[in-house]
Amino acid sequence: MLVVLKKGVSESATSDVAGRLRMLGLAVHRSDHDGQVRLGAVGDGAPIDWELVRGWPMVQSVAPIPVPFKLVSRVFQPRDTVLSVGRCAIGSHQLVLMAGPCSIESETQAFTVAEAVARSGATVLRGGAYKPRTSPYSFQGLGEEGLKLLRRAADAHGLAVVSEVLDTQLVPLVARYADVLQVGARNMQNFALLREVAHAGKPVLLKRGLASTIEEWLMSAEHILSQGNSQVILCERGIRTFETYTRNTLDLNAIPVVKELSHLPVIVDPSHGTGIRDKVAPMARAAIAAGADGLIVEVHHDPDHALSDGPQSLYPDQFAALADQIRTIAGVVGRTL
Amino acid sequence: MLVVLKKGVSESATSDVAGRLRMLGLAVHRSDHDGQVRLGAVGDGAPIDWELVRGWPMVQSVAPIPVPFKLVSRVFQPRDTVLSVGRCAIGSHQLVLMAGPCSIESETQAFTVAEAVARSGATVLRGGAYKPRTSPYSFQGLGEEGLKLLRRAADAHGLAVVSEVLDTQLVPLVARYADVLQVGARNMQNFALLREVAHAGKPVLLKRGLASTIEEWLMSAEHILSQGNSQVILCERGIRTFETYTRNTLDLNAIPVVKELSHLPVIVDPSHGTGIRDKVAPMARAAIAAGADGLIVEVHHDPDHALSDGPQSLYPDQFAALADQIRTIAGVVGRTL
Amino acid sequence: MLVVLKKGVSESATSDVAGRLRMLGLAVHRSDHDGQVRLGAVGDGAPIDWELVRGWPMVQSVAPIPVPFKLVSRVFQPRDTVLSVGRCAIGSHQLVLMAGPCSIESETQAFTVAEAVARSGATVLRGGAYKPRTSPYSFQGLGEEGLKLLRRAADAHGLAVVSEVLDTQLVPLVARYADVLQVGARNMQNFALLREVAHAGKPVLLKRGLASTIEEWLMSAEHILSQGNSQVILCERGIRTFETYTRNTLDLNAIPVVKELSHLPVIVDPSHGTGIRDKVAPMARAAIAAGADGLIVEVHHDPDHALSDGPQSLYPDQFAALADQIRTIAGVVGRTL
Amino acid sequence: MLVVLKKGVSESATSDVAGRLRMLGLAVHRSDHDGQVRLGAVGDGAPIDWELVRGWPMVQSVAPIPVPFKLVSRVFQPRDTVLSVGRCAIGSHQLVLMAGPCSIESETQAFTVAEAVARSGATVLRGGAYKPRTSPYSFQGLGEEGLKLLRRAADAHGLAVVSEVLDTQLVPLVARYADVLQVGARNMQNFALLREVAHAGKPVLLKRGLASTIEEWLMSAEHILSQGNSQVILCERGIRTFETYTRNTLDLNAIPVVKELSHLPVIVDPSHGTGIRDKVAPMARAAIAAGADGLIVEVHHDPDHALSDGPQSLYPDQFAALADQIRTIAGVVGRTL
Repeated sequence: MLVVLKKGVSESATSDVAGRLRMLGLAVHRSDHDGQVRLGAVGDGAPIDWELVRGWPMVQSVAPIPVPFKLVSRVFQPRDTVLSVGRCAIGSHQLVLMAGPCSIESETQAFTVAEAVARSGATVLRGGAYKPRTSPYSFQGLGEEGLKLLRRAADAHGLAVVSEVLDTQLVPLVARYADVLQVGARNMQNFALLREVAHAGKPVLLKRGLASTIEEWLMSAEHILSQGNSQVILCERGIRTFETYTRNTLDLNAIPVVKELSHLPVIVDPSHGTGIRDKVAPMARAAIAAGADGLIVEVHHDPDHALSDGPQSLYPDQFAALADQIRTIAGVVGRTL
Repeated sequence: MLVVLKKGVSESATSDVAGRLRMLGLAVHRSDHDGQVRLGAVGDGAPIDWELVRGWPMVQSVAPIPVPFKLVSRVFQPRDTVLSVGRCAIGSHQLVLMAGPCSIESETQAFTVAEAVARSGATVLRGGAYKPRTSPYSFQGLGEEGLKLLRRAADAHGLAVVSEVLDTQLVPLVARYADVLQVGARNMQNFALLREVAHAGKPVLLKRGLASTIEEWLMSAEHILSQGNSQVILCERGIRTFETYTRNTLDLNAIPVVKELSHLPVIVDPSHGTGIRDKVAPMARAAIAAGADGLIVEVHHDPDHALSDGPQSLYPDQFAALADQIRTIAGVVGRTL
Repeated sequence: MLVVLKKGVSESATSDVAGRLRMLGLAVHRSDHDGQVRLGAVGDGAPIDWELVRGWPMVQSVAPIPVPFKLVSRVFQPRDTVLSVGRCAIGSHQLVLMAGPCSIESETQAFTVAEAVARSGATVLRGGAYKPRTSPYSFQGLGEEGLKLLRRAADAHGLAVVSEVLDTQLVPLVARYADVLQVGARNMQNFALLREVAHAGKPVLLKRGLASTIEEWLMSAEHILSQGNSQVILCERGIRTFETYTRNTLDLNAIPVVKELSHLPVIVDPSHGTGIRDKVAPMARAAIAAGADGLIVEVHHDPDHALSDGPQSLYPDQFAALADQIRTIAGVVGRTL
Repeated sequence: MLVVLKKGVSESATSDVAGRLRMLGLAVHRSDHDGQVRLGAVGDGAPIDWELVRGWPMVQSVAPIPVPFKLVSRVFQPRDTVLSVGRCAIGSHQLVLMAGPCSIESETQAFTVAEAVARSGATVLRGGAYKPRTSPYSFQGLGEEGLKLLRRAADAHGLAVVSEVLDTQLVPLVARYADVLQVGARNMQNFALLREVAHAGKPVLLKRGLASTIEEWLMSAEHILSQGNSQVILCERGIRTFETYTRNTLDLNAIPVVKELSHLPVIVDPSHGTGIRDKVAPMARAAIAAGADGLIVEVHHDPDHALSDGPQSLYPDQFAALADQIRTIAGVVGRTL
């Protein structure tokens, strides 16, 4: 239920209402809009006497949130969520560029790529240290050693760090090095992991699952918000369809849909979305034109020898050229890079 | 097989080679590139002595075309196909805007919408007179009366006309009024219809089927080209996936893929692709940013009372605003509107 | 609307009611159930005073048909439709086996296969004379010559004939030779063709489109029934999904769903459904176990040299073994072969 | 690589070969067939001198395993894997019936359902104690209390227990109560969890992911086998397609495909596969007819009040009737129940 308080209600009165709702067995989340406090009150299905709540003096209105994703919805929070990650305010007029190699492979690689992407305008360095691989016989990542390299390379160039967490037991370790915890497409409905990353208290990059509807994706974000962490960045990275020419089908329709339904920022991964180097730039441009809040792009200085995802990684100069094009399109949609 | 003739071979020598290939039982198609004549020679699978052909004095090289769509491929014709439709050279640096109502409903509607879209920069008026409807009980279009209205409204505003043909028997009638014959998504593999529209000698707008791979789509275009009509415009309009929030999943990945594989122009239909009015503009912008050669958009002056597809039709002023945004993005990708 | 007449209403009174409904601008279709006449009355959306109809003395009840496919639904006709095709009553307790080559290729082939499948219990011979081919350069069928061979081979072994129609202009020709007109998956929403085959007055085998929902499939059947031809056999032949190991994904779930929603018989094509010879028998058995009314199976005496679909065609002895297994499973589901 | 030893090679010589392969940096797995020892040797991609191995006196042949799933393939192990679970030899001629409620809800429920399914021929009791729920606000299961009830109910009726594990940290707890550890569809590519359940040393029921190809599913099984645990039961439970009438599209084609590619047993879950009670029995029959090694079915004595999946749960008497039908079909495919 959405409980909107009257204008001008004091902080202590707000606390009082929230406390009373909690005594009814409800979890209470707060959002502010147009000078009014909005409380999202979610229970476990047990019946509540909402007429009673409606009668409280500080309460202006009580109404159901008509979508299954409650805290994630614009009904609960009309204004855009803006997250501070490094030098970037993700979800604001400022577009975010996250870039870096698929996997961290070596010190040279990490520093070379970090330097290149920073120069082109990226503010977040991506790189996998623990890799989800279809085959148990493929390179699984450097582990903590990879995280250390990633952190040092990022720090050397003033970048923030995003890296994937594969399991609940790895959350504390990855959180020690990364600024943003990534939940990959294969784990989008690993609900134990969603709960654990929520508790780490850091921003979470939540990729859309290969076969997930937009609603299921928002419901997975709701798992994180319902644990009290509202710093979620959604990431469209392609869905699975019958088309096999591209690795996945990047679903850009999801961008305007998510922007309508939710206040959370949404970025696009054109590298996994297409799986083909020379399709990355067109789809990256398209993503920004469709209204995305940013991009996460795979860049490698020597993709022919990459241990994973080489064929979809941009060369540093391709990334630089892309960043220039993005800058111009940003203007058309009222954004800056 | 691709038979490339030596530089400077005369027209009569070219005719001679073509004639000899035909005597071997091959269909011969011609394309010119970099001052050289290229002959695409396609047989019915009977064995040909290609060593013999390789030895002919005017022949520089003979090589297989390594894709199933032969005449449609860039291997056969490296340069972009450019089609003249009304005032627009489709496939050139000039983007094409096709716009109009889903169905032609009345004189007022046809003229009002034609006037509006012409003012915003459209050069082709769209409008259905024969409608493919899932239900036999829905409005099936005005038939020839609709075609007449469409033609008159277009002529009044200097526009060309595109309209759908549903059956081989209707080809002559629709070709009498329309400048471009549209083959709809449901008929993409209606091979009898493809042959018949090819023979009408007019440009064909070939929509991608809901469950068609890019290769199947290009193969359907090959059906038209193999009949001697190379004036085909491809149109991406959304594929069917598990996602139900949007009516279809507009597959913009197909744009850069088609541009790589084929010389044919490719445009995008964001109206059917999304099925939701306020998602049309973002996806239209994205289509141009991804490299499409133009758009086909549903516009209606009174969509609440449209007999079909009202919820996805733009208001004229929304279309005007969209055209302005497209104009700016066009510059980023080296095009004009 | 479903207009149910009172028990014992005479034929002339029934005609009277039907006539009055027609005067209201409605198309009227009849079905009998439990000694009562049921009239399905479908209009073009213009308002009708149903209270008036409800008051007519012979009328027991008037109620909307709550699904978009009206005449196809069990609401309109609760009992199963049974069609006589050759020696088989399709849709009765008797299962139908349709079998034969993908394409008719020669007299030897047609007669050899016809003899084999007849001996194993098939009552309908299948065979394509006009083939829908993805490539314009593939074998397109023998045309009328193929139809003649098919008819003679069938007659020689007491079989009925089913063959595909690709275009409205071919309907009279195919109807001259075939007992059942097949509309292929690619033409499931070729509405002009649906109307034309309906008018031929013969049973129609309507294959499900590759990307068609069950509802769309039933709506295509409704196109045929609404033209006054209720002899429709539905055929599930696989849908398109992300899985590529099999040619298509045979959707057997559709069998119990269709049996619940509609009175029309539904058969299964495991040959196109899987595209792999040794997967045909398991899926054929599964289809019967799931409640299908029969099978249509590709059989070829020399599949390695077949001009189309060789890899999915059964050898005659494999078909014979399959027929034996089907006979036993039939008993479990209350059917016979 | 598959290293086949000569007939009659002693155990000590076998150990010697295995030891030498390990010294080359390879993981070695063993399978026996036709009186010959077969060693699957898998490395990390570093080059190996296979000519050397080929020259060893005990070695008959060395050949690559031509599929990405090595230990899971029939190339490595031609004979069927048979697993002992309670009174059933899964993968043998004996079909396995697993049945029980979606979630364990109460003592009464667990014991009532256990008694019913045991009487009808089930040998394994299913029931969720930790439930993966799309919404954080839905019932999440009784946790350890649920496992205790499940164990006691199963023991009271001579049944084995299968229950789902949601996270690596829960593996020891679930393994304390369950005989078979289930990895759900959403976790099919949770590789950390696959590794952890492998180490628990108990049979694993591996459900196919909603958007997983058959190859990816077998690769996930390979993750388990590569950890030294070859007790894997595959479970088809429906894939996600565009069709929405059924909850998922149960892909029975996967059954004969898996039986060809792999030696692992494969069962079918028609409850999640269709999501509709009266579609469960037809699809269960079809699964057995297609060659499945068994079924896992949701049964509830009071589905209208179930806390999850009520609409797809069978009543006990429906399950009894289904078991009878399965018994007859089993005979057709050379199996028993």
